[in-house]
Amino acid sequence: MARTKSVGSRDRLDRLYKDCCEQSDTFAGYPCNTDFDYSELFRFLDFPLNNVGDPFNPCSYHLHTREIEREVLQWFADLLHAPEGDWWGYVTNGGTEGNLYGLYLARELHPRGMVYFSQDTHYSVSKNLRLLRMPHIMIKSQLSGEIDYEDLRETLRIHRDVPPIVFANIGTTMKEGVDRVDLIQEMLDGLAIPSYYIHCDMALCGMTLPFIDGAPFFDFADGIHSLSISGHKFIGSPVPCGVALALKRNVDLIARSIEYVGTLDTTISGSRNGFSPLILWHAIKMKGKRGFRSEVARCIGNARYAVERFESVGWKAWRNPHSITVVLERPPARILDKWQLAVQESTAHVIVMPHIDREKIDALAEDLERCRNEAN
Amino acid sequence: MARTKSVGSRDRLDRLYKDCCEQSDTFAGYPCNTDFDYSELFRFLDFPLNNVGDPFNPCSYHLHTREIEREVLQWFADLLHAPEGDWWGYVTNGGTEGNLYGLYLARELHPRGMVYFSQDTHYSVSKNLRLLRMPHIMIKSQLSGEIDYEDLRETLRIHRDVPPIVFANIGTTMKEGVDRVDLIQEMLDGLAIPSYYIHCDMALCGMTLPFIDGAPFFDFADGIHSLSISGHKFIGSPVPCGVALALKRNVDLIARSIEYVGTLDTTISGSRNGFSPLILWHAIKMKGKRGFRSEVARCIGNARYAVERFESVGWKAWRNPHSITVVLERPPARILDKWQLAVQESTAHVIVMPHIDREKIDALAEDLERCRNEAN
Amino acid sequence: MARTKSVGSRDRLDRLYKDCCEQSDTFAGYPCNTDFDYSELFRFLDFPLNNVGDPFNPCSYHLHTREIEREVLQWFADLLHAPEGDWWGYVTNGGTEGNLYGLYLARELHPRGMVYFSQDTHYSVSKNLRLLRMPHIMIKSQLSGEIDYEDLRETLRIHRDVPPIVFANIGTTMKEGVDRVDLIQEMLDGLAIPSYYIHCDMALCGMTLPFIDGAPFFDFADGIHSLSISGHKFIGSPVPCGVALALKRNVDLIARSIEYVGTLDTTISGSRNGFSPLILWHAIKMKGKRGFRSEVARCIGNARYAVERFESVGWKAWRNPHSITVVLERPPARILDKWQLAVQESTAHVIVMPHIDREKIDALAEDLERCRNEAN
Amino acid sequence: MARTKSVGSRDRLDRLYKDCCEQSDTFAGYPCNTDFDYSELFRFLDFPLNNVGDPFNPCSYHLHTREIEREVLQWFADLLHAPEGDWWGYVTNGGTEGNLYGLYLARELHPRGMVYFSQDTHYSVSKNLRLLRMPHIMIKSQLSGEIDYEDLRETLRIHRDVPPIVFANIGTTMKEGVDRVDLIQEMLDGLAIPSYYIHCDMALCGMTLPFIDGAPFFDFADGIHSLSISGHKFIGSPVPCGVALALKRNVDLIARSIEYVGTLDTTISGSRNGFSPLILWHAIKMKGKRGFRSEVARCIGNARYAVERFESVGWKAWRNPHSITVVLERPPARILDKWQLAVQESTAHVIVMPHIDREKIDALAEDLERCRNEAN
Repeated sequence: MARTKSVGSRDRLDRLYKDCCEQSDTFAGYPCNTDFDYSELFRFLDFPLNNVGDPFNPCSYHLHTREIEREVLQWFADLLHAPEGDWWGYVTNGGTEGNLYGLYLARELHPRGMVYFSQDTHYSVSKNLRLLRMPHIMIKSQLSGEIDYEDLRETLRIHRDVPPIVFANIGTTMKEGVDRVDLIQEMLDGLAIPSYYIHCDMALCGMTLPFIDGAPFFDFADGIHSLSISGHKFIGSPVPCGVALALKRNVDLIARSIEYVGTLDTTISGSRNGFSPLILWHAIKMKGKRGFRSEVARCIGNARYAVERFESVGWKAWRNPHSITVVLERPPARILDKWQLAVQESTAHVIVMPHIDREKIDALAEDLERCRNEAN
Repeated sequence: MARTKSVGSRDRLDRLYKDCCEQSDTFAGYPCNTDFDYSELFRFLDFPLNNVGDPFNPCSYHLHTREIEREVLQWFADLLHAPEGDWWGYVTNGGTEGNLYGLYLARELHPRGMVYFSQDTHYSVSKNLRLLRMPHIMIKSQLSGEIDYEDLRETLRIHRDVPPIVFANIGTTMKEGVDRVDLIQEMLDGLAIPSYYIHCDMALCGMTLPFIDGAPFFDFADGIHSLSISGHKFIGSPVPCGVALALKRNVDLIARSIEYVGTLDTTISGSRNGFSPLILWHAIKMKGKRGFRSEVARCIGNARYAVERFESVGWKAWRNPHSITVVLERPPARILDKWQLAVQESTAHVIVMPHIDREKIDALAEDLERCRNEAN
Repeated sequence: MARTKSVGSRDRLDRLYKDCCEQSDTFAGYPCNTDFDYSELFRFLDFPLNNVGDPFNPCSYHLHTREIEREVLQWFADLLHAPEGDWWGYVTNGGTEGNLYGLYLARELHPRGMVYFSQDTHYSVSKNLRLLRMPHIMIKSQLSGEIDYEDLRETLRIHRDVPPIVFANIGTTMKEGVDRVDLIQEMLDGLAIPSYYIHCDMALCGMTLPFIDGAPFFDFADGIHSLSISGHKFIGSPVPCGVALALKRNVDLIARSIEYVGTLDTTISGSRNGFSPLILWHAIKMKGKRGFRSEVARCIGNARYAVERFESVGWKAWRNPHSITVVLERPPARILDKWQLAVQESTAHVIVMPHIDREKIDALAEDLERCRNEAN
Repeated sequence: MARTKSVGSRDRLDRLYKDCCEQSDTFAGYPCNTDFDYSELFRFLDFPLNNVGDPFNPCSYHLHTREIEREVLQWFADLLHAPEGDWWGYVTNGGTEGNLYGLYLARELHPRGMVYFSQDTHYSVSKNLRLLRMPHIMIKSQLSGEIDYEDLRETLRIHRDVPPIVFANIGTTMKEGVDRVDLIQEMLDGLAIPSYYIHCDMALCGMTLPFIDGAPFFDFADGIHSLSISGHKFIGSPVPCGVALALKRNVDLIARSIEYVGTLDTTISGSRNGFSPLILWHAIKMKGKRGFRSEVARCIGNARYAVERFESVGWKAWRNPHSITVVLERPPARILDKWQLAVQESTAHVIVMPHIDREKIDALAEDLERCRNEAN
């Protein structure tokens, strides 16, 4: 092992490591699983792995994990009902890149298209839309985090002359609200809009809802055109990663239109991380659909428990059905900081990820109770 | 260590590892150093590190390496003469993201700006320009890979009504040709163009030319506005990464213009890899400027040796001054494949990275010689 | 007669002819009359007839039928109440070209105009609008195939800032629904929209409704601006053809605006079929208005009979008033194929053209009955 | 045979027929062969043939000649070196429709593309460009009718930021000038323009130049993207018709982008003439490549003879190499009218089609001589 020679540097790393260990203990506000062990894969970090370009094309750069990547993509394509022979995708550097890809695709198909997304949509989407120079309209949200269908319908009606590009949240960041793609499609048909595009951001819920019977969930089987899912959220990963999937026929269209620039590579990055596919592959092989199903069930149970527990100490809390996100009355700064909770106006949220067990929920509930008592 | 339970899966990983070991031996065509050891950092892969958003802003997500990242950025800012107090940057997922960032910045400053770049520019730039919906003109290249100044001047003259955004290569991908930023600035002044933007893609050479006395090199000291440099190229990294640097005054302007979306975060990704900054930091601490200087000198010497060696076996080869890229007459497919050489029309190139020692150069020269003999 | 020398080729033609004879027998799903005999005109097929350009301009190409064409146009202008001295037109290659012409004209008059058309409009209109790069909004249809006036009114109200271009169906393809131009005009007046354009697609019904007393019908007398009518539909023709008519004052405006390209020819095609005008002329001379009136009456009677007949065998069927199109519950594939019926979701339609006599209706009814019995 | 009942009508037809016979005798100014006999096909005019939509898709309208049409297309695809498996096309209503199709395709591929075409281009192209709302620049022509390469180069240079769409004439209407596609491609490469489209209008010469050894000719083998050829020109047809051919990969792109309007049919017309394919098929079967080759050779010989003959009577005349168009000093109106010659400023042209034999050339020469003598 090559160790940095200076004692100062080694101390820095040790301190950072210790800090990470501590912070992990009370990491309850982000939808990122900390419960993983990929040490079996570390030996691959001795190579400059690089899955340059399209994972389905051959490449003269031989230090890659493209085969592994394709297996990962196939697994997700199966899970999310991508039509056989008509899907394409790649492992991304995170959910944002997958969303950027889907929107880019939509723009190439509908150069004059108007993007609609709800108020509760992650802020990176607005950044992406600016990057892509795409016109867009933000739609109101319901209290549940779900899009306001009446506002969407009225707005679509007014803009019927431009093809709509609907950016649907399958689980919003703060409340895990799910935009009902079926209702949106009915609406588009009702308005006699013949041509549209639906991209689904299922960063977190793409790995929970498919494993919950009876949960509202929308994927390629429901007629969506592309989706983005995160790898470092429910699955858990030391580096942000994700999967972008889209209908192949549409990707081919982009590929063709950029062929003139001398490549068929439509990925956003050029050089691509070859280690992330190994991580996702490892997780899939270790757990399988059965494993994820039982993990999701456990989280749902714990989330239910968390709401009850917080309420029992007099702290308002609620969750959407089938959701592992618990929305609660905003605690004071000290608690927010300790448990690393993200806030939105007067609320905060705890995400009951696999590493959040009942013991941690109890600890947080006790903190809240103490805080409630002090206030009285 | 959590090992995948199935024997099949473990075999797959073992085979992949073995394959990577073999391919590393003859990895001579890409500007990616394979000569690194970051095992001291592997323990950090037990955490879901994430440097969400702007590295200079605080964040409620506590599992991050932002402090380390800021030190890395400071090191590069010093190296590349970024003006004190007026620079900003972040660690990216590779050179492409840094170029995308620079062009995005340029577009926000000059919404009607026209981008100029040479024929020898990496194809990802054309992809980026399409993504960004920026008008652009490809300029001819000289044989050296450097931009054709006459063509650039004529084209600029014709389009004097729109602000120019010059995408300069400080080392092209295939020939390491360096666009002379000083000449371009003289040209712009000569044409009385008051307002322009210069972004430099120094993916590889940002880590070689600053360490070579007398080499043509251009950075913030020469009035450029932004730059992108790769971390997985000369430095070497198991995952693609890089550094984007830009003038802070311009970044602040974007930040303000996207503030209405409720964030000051101007990074392209949202969630950002927290492991890459550790890698760059480790490399910097291990080697320091002195270490890189001697490593570059060794590579330059080996590149000179390679040209002589290839010529000695009757194989045409040449390199630009101060370049570690050796351009050679295109060998047959068998050699291209074995040594993983990228080609362009009738030429191929060998990049004499730190892991390409004289022994490897000799082996490749012998392959070329054998091939020459068979042909006769 | 020049016969192809090879026996194989002659056999091919003979087989094709036999196949056409057979298919003619059960040709019931398209609004194309098969009942015609133009053999008197075949001798003209010995010349390369070509009505190049505007039928009202002289031409140095002497092998043409422009005089005949002008007589045909005059006949239609009379029938459809085109204002004397203020109409222009030409014989087209079919209804699509006439619609393209009308929309083109509308666009030149209202460069920023928005096109409105109902869901039941023929798909070629959407293709045309794309070709013409015209913004457009599809409006809902009623069950009858007629446009939904409430939806149209709301949509017009929202877009009052751009001049409306209404594409009205005088007989939709699938149900012969007639858009009430009078109601639409009232609506436009009610919304205080001062400037608009109405084009009518009367492909089939332009030759039926004018001959039915009391039928809803709209032409130049009602203030429309242009129309398209097919020649190969009710009239019957071996080659697709049609007539485009428009207000001359508007055509002159286009003519002037394209004059700079050195021609006053505003037709979409350059070289134009000189045989089609002969066909239309022949039909007009053979039948006259009186002949068409009695033929239409016969078809209407047969259509009424068909609805009763289909209902009598337990097959749901209905038709719009004054319509020769019978909409019926969708039969199985075998019947669709035999009778060449076009379908839309759960319905199909039989068009009771002049060649569909009661004998054929009976035969189709029997097929349906058999099918009903098998199902039970 | 159904004869029009009125004597007046029959007289009209008889007079028209007689007039056509007479005009045929001195039909020397248009590139339309009058020398054909398709009477073997007349029996097909008893059916309402209609090749609705894409010739390669199935259709529920059974009275069609799609199989015949596909064979015709295959013959042209072979002749013009369309890449196997990557071409698509259809039989059009004439060369204009084929040009409109090619330009439409180019526009969909390059929505911001700029069209370049020479001054000698047929005026219908300007009409088409207006219809398609495509920006365009007319380039100067050389005296030969060929495009002025210097002007093209300069204009391209100025507009390097928008993808060029080159509309090349493979035989201009008035002088049969051929735009050198190879020189244009070199020019585009020299200007480092990475992305462009080339459409060739080979209305007449698509059936002459491929049969002349050593003639300059450009087709798919030379990298063009689409072409239009006329059927009623060299081949000869009683109704205008033609063939449009394009790269399938690009057509699929349009098809995809209009799929949203519910169809994959990309043809300009909807209903399509089913008789024209029979005509082209008959001509191909009767003559074959060998037959056309000898017919072209004869025409070339006669054209050479015509130049000599006109010159011999003191009438200035010339022709481009390999051309059947003879350009001559403009004769007085009486001769223009008798021989139906089209004029351009001070010149007129005689097209030495298959039906223009030496006897006719002599007769015209004598008319010119007489005219020359009268003038002196």
